[in-house]
Amino acid sequence: MFYTDGKLQYPVRVETPDPLFARALQQAIGGIEGEIRVAMQYFFQACGARGNPKFRDLLMNTAAEELGHIEMLATAVAMNLEGAPLKVKEDIAADPIGGAVLGGLNLKNLLSAGLSAMPVDSDGVPFDMSHIYASGNIAADMTANVAAESTGRVLAVRLYNMTSDAGMKDMLSYLIARDTMHQNQWLAALEELGGSKGVFPIPNSFPQEEENREFSYAYLGFQVDGQEPAGGRWSSGQSVDGKGEFKTSPMTALGQKPVLSPAKPGSGAQKEQEM
Amino acid sequence: MFYTDGKLQYPVRVETPDPLFARALQQAIGGIEGEIRVAMQYFFQACGARGNPKFRDLLMNTAAEELGHIEMLATAVAMNLEGAPLKVKEDIAADPIGGAVLGGLNLKNLLSAGLSAMPVDSDGVPFDMSHIYASGNIAADMTANVAAESTGRVLAVRLYNMTSDAGMKDMLSYLIARDTMHQNQWLAALEELGGSKGVFPIPNSFPQEEENREFSYAYLGFQVDGQEPAGGRWSSGQSVDGKGEFKTSPMTALGQKPVLSPAKPGSGAQKEQEM
Amino acid sequence: MFYTDGKLQYPVRVETPDPLFARALQQAIGGIEGEIRVAMQYFFQACGARGNPKFRDLLMNTAAEELGHIEMLATAVAMNLEGAPLKVKEDIAADPIGGAVLGGLNLKNLLSAGLSAMPVDSDGVPFDMSHIYASGNIAADMTANVAAESTGRVLAVRLYNMTSDAGMKDMLSYLIARDTMHQNQWLAALEELGGSKGVFPIPNSFPQEEENREFSYAYLGFQVDGQEPAGGRWSSGQSVDGKGEFKTSPMTALGQKPVLSPAKPGSGAQKEQEM
Amino acid sequence: MFYTDGKLQYPVRVETPDPLFARALQQAIGGIEGEIRVAMQYFFQACGARGNPKFRDLLMNTAAEELGHIEMLATAVAMNLEGAPLKVKEDIAADPIGGAVLGGLNLKNLLSAGLSAMPVDSDGVPFDMSHIYASGNIAADMTANVAAESTGRVLAVRLYNMTSDAGMKDMLSYLIARDTMHQNQWLAALEELGGSKGVFPIPNSFPQEEENREFSYAYLGFQVDGQEPAGGRWSSGQSVDGKGEFKTSPMTALGQKPVLSPAKPGSGAQKEQEM
Amino acid sequence: MFYTDGKLQYPVRVETPDPLFARALQQAIGGIEGEIRVAMQYFFQACGARGNPKFRDLLMNTAAEELGHIEMLATAVAMNLEGAPLKVKEDIAADPIGGAVLGGLNLKNLLSAGLSAMPVDSDGVPFDMSHIYASGNIAADMTANVAAESTGRVLAVRLYNMTSDAGMKDMLSYLIARDTMHQNQWLAALEELGGSKGVFPIPNSFPQEEENREFSYAYLGFQVDGQEPAGGRWSSGQSVDGKGEFKTSPMTALGQKPVLSPAKPGSGAQKEQEM
Amino acid sequence: MFYTDGKLQYPVRVETPDPLFARALQQAIGGIEGEIRVAMQYFFQACGARGNPKFRDLLMNTAAEELGHIEMLATAVAMNLEGAPLKVKEDIAADPIGGAVLGGLNLKNLLSAGLSAMPVDSDGVPFDMSHIYASGNIAADMTANVAAESTGRVLAVRLYNMTSDAGMKDMLSYLIARDTMHQNQWLAALEELGGSKGVFPIPNSFPQEEENREFSYAYLGFQVDGQEPAGGRWSSGQSVDGKGEFKTSPMTALGQKPVLSPAKPGSGAQKEQEM
Repeated sequence: MFYTDGKLQYPVRVETPDPLFARALQQAIGGIEGEIRVAMQYFFQACGARGNPKFRDLLMNTAAEELGHIEMLATAVAMNLEGAPLKVKEDIAADPIGGAVLGGLNLKNLLSAGLSAMPVDSDGVPFDMSHIYASGNIAADMTANVAAESTGRVLAVRLYNMTSDAGMKDMLSYLIARDTMHQNQWLAALEELGGSKGVFPIPNSFPQEEENREFSYAYLGFQVDGQEPAGGRWSSGQSVDGKGEFKTSPMTALGQKPVLSPAKPGSGAQKEQEM
Repeated sequence: MFYTDGKLQYPVRVETPDPLFARALQQAIGGIEGEIRVAMQYFFQACGARGNPKFRDLLMNTAAEELGHIEMLATAVAMNLEGAPLKVKEDIAADPIGGAVLGGLNLKNLLSAGLSAMPVDSDGVPFDMSHIYASGNIAADMTANVAAESTGRVLAVRLYNMTSDAGMKDMLSYLIARDTMHQNQWLAALEELGGSKGVFPIPNSFPQEEENREFSYAYLGFQVDGQEPAGGRWSSGQSVDGKGEFKTSPMTALGQKPVLSPAKPGSGAQKEQEM
Repeated sequence: MFYTDGKLQYPVRVETPDPLFARALQQAIGGIEGEIRVAMQYFFQACGARGNPKFRDLLMNTAAEELGHIEMLATAVAMNLEGAPLKVKEDIAADPIGGAVLGGLNLKNLLSAGLSAMPVDSDGVPFDMSHIYASGNIAADMTANVAAESTGRVLAVRLYNMTSDAGMKDMLSYLIARDTMHQNQWLAALEELGGSKGVFPIPNSFPQEEENREFSYAYLGFQVDGQEPAGGRWSSGQSVDGKGEFKTSPMTALGQKPVLSPAKPGSGAQKEQEM
Repeated sequence: MFYTDGKLQYPVRVETPDPLFARALQQAIGGIEGEIRVAMQYFFQACGARGNPKFRDLLMNTAAEELGHIEMLATAVAMNLEGAPLKVKEDIAADPIGGAVLGGLNLKNLLSAGLSAMPVDSDGVPFDMSHIYASGNIAADMTANVAAESTGRVLAVRLYNMTSDAGMKDMLSYLIARDTMHQNQWLAALEELGGSKGVFPIPNSFPQEEENREFSYAYLGFQVDGQEPAGGRWSSGQSVDGKGEFKTSPMTALGQKPVLSPAKPGSGAQKEQEM
Repeated sequence: MFYTDGKLQYPVRVETPDPLFARALQQAIGGIEGEIRVAMQYFFQACGARGNPKFRDLLMNTAAEELGHIEMLATAVAMNLEGAPLKVKEDIAADPIGGAVLGGLNLKNLLSAGLSAMPVDSDGVPFDMSHIYASGNIAADMTANVAAESTGRVLAVRLYNMTSDAGMKDMLSYLIARDTMHQNQWLAALEELGGSKGVFPIPNSFPQEEENREFSYAYLGFQVDGQEPAGGRWSSGQSVDGKGEFKTSPMTALGQKPVLSPAKPGSGAQKEQEM
Repeated sequence: MFYTDGKLQYPVRVETPDPLFARALQQAIGGIEGEIRVAMQYFFQACGARGNPKFRDLLMNTAAEELGHIEMLATAVAMNLEGAPLKVKEDIAADPIGGAVLGGLNLKNLLSAGLSAMPVDSDGVPFDMSHIYASGNIAADMTANVAAESTGRVLAVRLYNMTSDAGMKDMLSYLIARDTMHQNQWLAALEELGGSKGVFPIPNSFPQEEENREFSYAYLGFQVDGQEPAGGRWSSGQSVDGKGEFKTSPMTALGQKPVLSPAKPGSGAQKEQEM
């Protein structure tokens, strides 16, 4: 259950409204690296968490935090759009900068939302909830969360570098710090779950003797000339999960050319396919 | 540039066609954990790779492998659909099992593809290429790849447990083994990039003195009663990136209730909002 | 800013787990009439609210409530999936009921979420955030909210009628009551904004003398035989907004057949189109 | 069944083609507030209408009108794109205005449609037919229609204010007038269905004694400090549906922390979750 | 501009309602081969048609026909759902056939539409208007239309074979005939535009001397062993457009391994990528 | 199974990076006319091909080629983005051209991909795999492929005309040539399958005596005035499939106004609909 106080988690100030930056900020709301994604991902992972209940608590607590981040960013978008032009032709004639900005403006923020934020990315593409990775495997979820916070911090840094507005930089310095914490937090959860050697391969509940172990730690080459591909930590030495030794070998087809049965009569194929 | 030999990377056999299992296999083709996702993700990461070229090679080589996995699975779907019923009423009356299976059949595999595979998931939802995470940050990409292979192996294990067909189990034992390797492979790449302390926080190129360091390693509590949330490895001790100390503290709103400007005249609001 | 206590807003009990009902409940989570929709809609409307701040409060307070409803329903889905079969063939052979249920089961709840809830509808289609209507016009938003709660209550009633589980019926009797309140609440907000005659036509800030008033209150007929279509409250009498009189008349084309210019050379048309 | 005369319902003139305005007009075609949405929504509501057949007639008649609106707008987009530049670099160098316009141009209108209209919004996002709300409940449908016409008129007003082209303003003055009528028309249909006290709560066929009436007219507070949220028409007095009295009270969790069962062995979870 | 008479273009009768067939029919409404697709495709092609106006007439006339087909199918879906069960458990226990059918039922037709049709496919996936191919090139459009009617007739045949209901077979025998006509109609339009030798390669306005003619009529081989792929009409003899001679040759990489510049400082990459 | 050599199929050179052209090139990657579409379409058609195996070979061989085209274009996008500005305000002030370009830049290429290519179109909309037409009918597939290559070549020509960069023009001259070949190749496959008279109507396996032949070759008129629509090759003479004679006639409704049953009690309708 959730509660609110209607306040912002951290101050949001905009010294000089900038519609193009508003558009860029939309990526941090509705982009695949954005805050809706993490808020809803942690929320659904929490709702489906089985096993030690401390992970449900950890996830739901962080979901509450991320909801506040969406609120901060949505407010920042609206503030950056204040004063944005409502007409097209005149502004472009009078002011190349304004015109360019208008050209770059996510038009939907005006047309569909009245100069407010939307749950869309910086190109106006709505967020699609299929990006909520909640697998029912706690280690896979934690790994997905590290990934989400990694691209999230990359995005926040790009936004920080894009603006020179002191208020926006301050807000982003907070969000970047939180991404630092959240990367570490989910890595710490993986440590608590056993670290690399205890957690991997995910899921650790599958008996590895049932997989085809000849291929479990082989870096296979798919080079047209049959040569080995460029090596690295992944081509020799102990595997990171501690359960095998890396090796490298070129791969060739182990199966044949597949031949499906003729089309079943009545299945809508051409008659030539039925023979 | 890509080449083919038209053969299957690994043998695909189906002893007893099972339309419902065909439907489940679709998740491994067009699901968010599926093979289109990883094939295209590694492909686009390779195309955008900047820095040490060995990572481009690693990614493109693995992309080639994953393309072959889609081919294997698509063949498996078609083989599981061979002989599937084309009519509805009669089959249900004659055969509760067949009827139930037909009820569960992804109808589109028949109606839209003539009893063949499609780039959709087990509910017939088409794969959406926004799931290709290719951030331009090599460490974020490797992390996303570990996550992708983790949910991928979880899915393959679920499919393995779902079927009793020896041919299908053999095919999946290969795919599970490859997921084991790929989890390890991307983890190994992260080690080569510096390991936890060298890689995190991602991106490591951002000067941490510009983030609001008061919040960089704090596990903040968003509990309604102001209590600390349940602790763990993430609430005290050295951070995993080695650059800070975890601490825990309840959070309260640092910002105020936001108040946006009145609606701009002509912006399509109600007149009461313009004051 | 949001807070949580990790508890459920209202008790969630399942007496007899029913995977098919779990699938149906997904509609109330990720369907267009579902709780993600209203939670996020009120949230974004609040973030963009301009004018009297009481509406922001009203919206954000209700958003917090709806987040708790998602949590309840996600828990209900997971509880209805507990014990669901993991294998296909055997269950169907042994148990026509189980088989039918498995046939109907949203396979993704197993394959992608490990028998937990997902942000998808009852067909496994992910929720798409373009359904968040937040127009920047407070009256249009309130109207959209009445509509959302109307389809929401219709859905909840259908779910209530579909199940015979006492726990599920109790949970739904709460959600239906809340939908009753929310329909009334948004209607009440429209009254506070001026009622039908003050609010409509939305937006009330546009000077009606600039619209083509000949057509503002006319029920135009588009019947092929030129007859008037069937009349009703909408075809005569004072308009509901109190600003005109309804009338009815058949419509004929006032414009001509449109003729676009020839294709611009170099624009990729056939050469015959350039003349 | 539908017929056409190939003519425009109302004259469409463009005095000065403006590619950026073409892009904005796309929102009125393929945006969620646009004409495809209402045309298809009324069409599908008509096809599923049960009960008094006059509503089917009303809906299908208006669907025919809206199809003509799409045609008008698509023609307007094509006319605004006539003469748009086909090359990028030169235009920008020669003409900052043109360049800005090109920068703002929905590129797909050129690349994918040869300077014609598309069923996409102003950001090039294709219309998604999940926005067709046709619930099978006639009152919910009418309410959804009032909402659709409200955001539709808001959008049309924004477009009207954005352009200074007399032809475009004339076309929009017609469309705005029609939105005025359609808002009134659907409100009138709700009156015919019984007005607020007869129609609400939707669906009116559900016996309210089966809902948990303690919560049916309560404005619940979800404020972190336990205070009552800001009141209004919705917090006291008779409910709008005439069936209850509004009251206000803070809400606390009535349920417990949910604890799901351990993961089922073989379900792809980590082994630690199975205990 | 469009008109209606509210009648069905062709009689729609259902002798025995069949919810599973209703689900299958949804593919003909909202599937990518369905009637919404062709109706809207011809409509938008008409609106953007440049050149000889007879093609606009042809397209808009056929769009009107296809709108009537949607209406027929939507009526057929609703009629097949009449009497469908509203409860789950009881029906399955009482009636394996009904249960299986309920398991297969597109639940959204009940939950979201009250036993009516929706603009979705047979898996409940909403139609996405990006499938409207309207390229601005009249020959490309006609070709796309032949393709659309080909998959459309394949689908209609599959539906015809799936049902034994005489009413449904009669309706489909009409729709199949119309698909026969429409395939021929668009092929005839291509003949009028010049036939294979006049129309192809599309667009015929591009001067072929500017393409790299070495590759214009070569069937290149991408076989890993460097062998020529299997030949056919496409590997030798005059090309179908009459402008070249087919030849076959294995392809090898003409370009080098691409090496992008190091990451730009400040672009959010890892620091190792900036060198 | 697929192999790679990591090289480009054809040289990719960019003389002057142009971010706006990078954005346009995205259409050729992730647009509906783009290379992901054809690569995956041929791939899935190959995997489902039943009948003569030479078509599987033809399709898979061409799929391999198209994968290399995606690689070329993705490299071209990254090269056109090299040196693109990372900040917004300064660039616009300093440089109207740069500013306009930045305004036009697909922001996601920076924010989400670090100045690399993405699987999205020129408006940043991700490619949706529902565009993979693979019907199980080999002739329908070949027809869809001709259509795909037609819009593909139209797009490539538009891009060619848009740029003045010699490197880009050279690359596109290769891709245009390949589209010429592929149009011819699929047309040739249709000839091999029997040509117009052998192939059409698709599917040719359906006995035409079961369709309602009265309507099989009739160009029906849906003109409101009952007049015949404009004629052409499609209105008289032998049909293209050689199996009938075209004729023209106005159409009138053959069915009645549909009347559905009253709403089923308990189905969530208004009570007025149940009578």
